[in-house]
Amino acid sequence: MKKLLVIKIGGNIIDDDSKLSLFLSEFSSINERKILVHGGGKLATRIAEQLGIEQQLIDGRRITDAETLKIVTMVYAGYINKNIVAILQQHGCNAIGITGADGNAITAHKRIKGDIDYGFAGDIDAVNTSFIDHLLGRGTDIIIAPITHDKNGQLLNTNADTIAQEIATAMSRFYEVSLVYGFEKAGVLMDAEKDESVIHEIDPLLFTKLKADNVIFAGMIPKLDNAFSAIERGVKKVIIGKAENISELIDGKKGTTIRK
Amino acid sequence: MKKLLVIKIGGNIIDDDSKLSLFLSEFSSINERKILVHGGGKLATRIAEQLGIEQQLIDGRRITDAETLKIVTMVYAGYINKNIVAILQQHGCNAIGITGADGNAITAHKRIKGDIDYGFAGDIDAVNTSFIDHLLGRGTDIIIAPITHDKNGQLLNTNADTIAQEIATAMSRFYEVSLVYGFEKAGVLMDAEKDESVIHEIDPLLFTKLKADNVIFAGMIPKLDNAFSAIERGVKKVIIGKAENISELIDGKKGTTIRK
Repeated sequence: MKKLLVIKIGGNIIDDDSKLSLFLSEFSSINERKILVHGGGKLATRIAEQLGIEQQLIDGRRITDAETLKIVTMVYAGYINKNIVAILQQHGCNAIGITGADGNAITAHKRIKGDIDYGFAGDIDAVNTSFIDHLLGRGTDIIIAPITHDKNGQLLNTNADTIAQEIATAMSRFYEVSLVYGFEKAGVLMDAEKDESVIHEIDPLLFTKLKADNVIFAGMIPKLDNAFSAIERGVKKVIIGKAENISELIDGKKGTTIRK
Repeated sequence: MKKLLVIKIGGNIIDDDSKLSLFLSEFSSINERKILVHGGGKLATRIAEQLGIEQQLIDGRRITDAETLKIVTMVYAGYINKNIVAILQQHGCNAIGITGADGNAITAHKRIKGDIDYGFAGDIDAVNTSFIDHLLGRGTDIIIAPITHDKNGQLLNTNADTIAQEIATAMSRFYEVSLVYGFEKAGVLMDAEKDESVIHEIDPLLFTKLKADNVIFAGMIPKLDNAFSAIERGVKKVIIGKAENISELIDGKKGTTIRK
């Protein structure tokens, strides 16, 4: 089976020019088929502020009203996505930047209102694996901005972690997929304060034990639940660590690898 | 030889929601391989104003300083491009939106400084026909934002008319290409004040006569020079008219058709 890397990077890389530059240079040198999903970073918030559009966050999630959707579409699909592509092209990495609307790559529906109305936030319905495979087949790496569409003309702001997970699992039918989550820490840590206490590998048994011992707690639990769920759905392994060390994460020299 | 349509639309369509909607609906219904190149419209200028970035135009051309490049990348490649793609998807037209950086589709160099420094404005060097053909080959229509790159990591603001012309001529090696320039008037007019005075067809002989008689003058001369140059370089025909009548332009019922 051919190999495929799905890598997610977030604001801690996107907002830091030197880290982003280092990451993109390493990314270019990895001689495998690759999909990069990027989050948004602080630029959207800054531009919203400059334009006088108030941003509302509930539990760390942005409430996407119509004006905010306009801004995230501009910043994520325009500025961030195209600059990443241009830098990769400079490194000789032939990349194409897309959203979920392009080639009907990812369809979603507007999140159903519960207690909170998230506005134009998308929950993913389907990944168009044949389109993605068509792009990969030509040796093109794919850079995905966290915007999807509902097939009714509506763009939707969509969580980048979820996009990475859905793409990784959908592509597992055709590829041996490794899913890498870029993270602000070196991996899953035995001691949350010490980057050098990385747990190199976690399987379901160890996960149960680490939860019972309270080594893994709070926000790390859903993160690892998602990782194991991706593995149950066909992903070969999930790696969590600092994206600026991408080559070493993939080699298993750094970060935490989660597998069956 | 397979047929290909290359259509350029400008601000008069992009800035008018009802015209844009009509155009995209008609565009979707055309059962041919298609490339749409869109210009920018007024949104970039409006956002630049809101952000307090002064815009400088010389002879109708925007001077692209670093901050302006950021805005046009956001507005053209992000907001306009992705909204067009989402609306086309709604109409069942499988479109993909790209810039010249994506898939290394269009390389350019920063315009060489003459009397005027246009800043980050690009003059086109090459069109990657094999990449474009790969996308078209899957039945995907291509929507191009007027941004290119220099292969050194620099995005460049690039004239949409020129992009349309360069793509049309480059693709003429593989396709029978019709190039349509959306225009605020119904076509080339015998009487500039009367939309009903459209000249239905112009060949080089008639062009010479119309210039001598001063029927074609000022800005229409370079436009037609470009059209004839495209034809000399392999394009089958060039059509000028109102893009909201796109089906009738292609059928030859409206607009001005320029051919050998």
